Amino acid sequence: MPRTLAFLRHGQSQWNLENRFTGWVDVNLTEKGEAEAKKSGQLLKEAGVAFDGCFTSVQTRAIRTLNFALEEMGESWLPVIKDWRLNERHYGGLTGLNKQETRDKHGDEQVHIWRRSYDTPPPVLEDSSEFPSLNDRRYRGIDVPKTESLKLCLDRVEPYWNEAIAPAVRQGQSFIIAAHGNSLRALVKLLFDVSDDEITQVEIPTGNPLLIELDDNLKPTSARYLDEERATELPSGF
Amino acid sequence: MPRTLAFLRHGQSQWNLENRFTGWVDVNLTEKGEAEAKKSGQLLKEAGVAFDGCFTSVQTRAIRTLNFALEEMGESWLPVIKDWRLNERHYGGLTGLNKQETRDKHGDEQVHIWRRSYDTPPPVLEDSSEFPSLNDRRYRGIDVPKTESLKLCLDRVEPYWNEAIAPAVRQGQSFIIAAHGNSLRALVKLLFDVSDDEITQVEIPTGNPLLIELDDNLKPTSARYLDEERATELPSGF
Repeated sequence: MPRTLAFLRHGQSQWNLENRFTGWVDVNLTEKGEAEAKKSGQLLKEAGVAFDGCFTSVQTRAIRTLNFALEEMGESWLPVIKDWRLNERHYGGLTGLNKQETRDKHGDEQVHIWRRSYDTPPPVLEDSSEFPSLNDRRYRGIDVPKTESLKLCLDRVEPYWNEAIAPAVRQGQSFIIAAHGNSLRALVKLLFDVSDDEITQVEIPTGNPLLIELDDNLKPTSARYLDEERATELPSGF
Repeated sequence: MPRTLAFLRHGQSQWNLENRFTGWVDVNLTEKGEAEAKKSGQLLKEAGVAFDGCFTSVQTRAIRTLNFALEEMGESWLPVIKDWRLNERHYGGLTGLNKQETRDKHGDEQVHIWRRSYDTPPPVLEDSSEFPSLNDRRYRGIDVPKTESLKLCLDRVEPYWNEAIAPAVRQGQSFIIAAHGNSLRALVKLLFDVSDDEITQVEIPTGNPLLIELDDNLKPTSARYLDEERATELPSGF
């Protein structure tokens, strides 16, 4: 029985719908997002993997996506560990802006760089911002970022993978990881050894489980999206 | 700030509605049960306690009640630990029977004894039963009971309280414990030092959080149901 991971990006959120940079703001799923989450649970059930547990972020949209999926699977009893290191990339000063506002304010080229560069973070989120994630009780004792590039996001995802997830996978366990576009992208970069350039082109669809089988050394031996019609391109070689 | 526990019995389940002995069968909430769960979340939110985490059973009706409550509270990020030792009392050979069928089969007096005696377990659940919880993947490695009196239920709740919950409460943490009529009754017996006779009369309503404040020695200093209109009698002295 191979070790299996299912990467599950949360279903559509209210700010996905409004095309706004979300990051660490704790927006909820839309009705469409809830339906995507349930569908992903049906697909995971059909896939027939006997998962041992789940990891998710501390953000409501990922947690609810996981809860809906587990309910559909009849596996709500599975252990779930929530950790901020699986949170979405922190979009700094872009938080709350929609894509058009951002372009108007900063120019097309700069916005393209922030969205597509691997290691250029947006401006920091000012303390005076209306999105004070710093004061949220769930982040007590944590050095909350003020902005993140994809690289900075990976820099906190990687130790969590190494310390919390990889050891259990190495022992033969299988997990659902319910998280976000960029924290999952970071995990894809790590597992599939994707280059800095290529990873910025990888788009993980919402609510479409990416099922990955791993060998003893945690190298992927196969990868596929369970909803084939909504699949995107896999890292080169897969 | 006192240590606070909220005991939350799951909302109405399908078999609550049908008046059947449920025990370890993993039935789901009814729509009324979901509404009760959401209401309990609103009441917990209004109570304003800063909970540190949650404990629940591995049974869907308790887990979903907790999930609904946390969503209403805006606290889905709280850590949740699921353990079979918070499961409902195992009703043995009565599992699946409705109350009338049970009386017809075993007689009024015997049924009254099984329901109201502290330490008389019903007949065991036969291996040939259509409710083979023994084979459920969630109970791998666990010595699944074949029947339980309230005393036998308490016998597995007590070590879990002592090992997993009490040490954290002693350190000053506050928790929601989302569980079942009898596993919560067992916790009430332990915390309030209720006699064997009196405990069988304690009825915890569904979806009505029982908020308990504890002193340094984990003795209750106050206890109240958050939905006063649906409150039942508290243990004597409260």
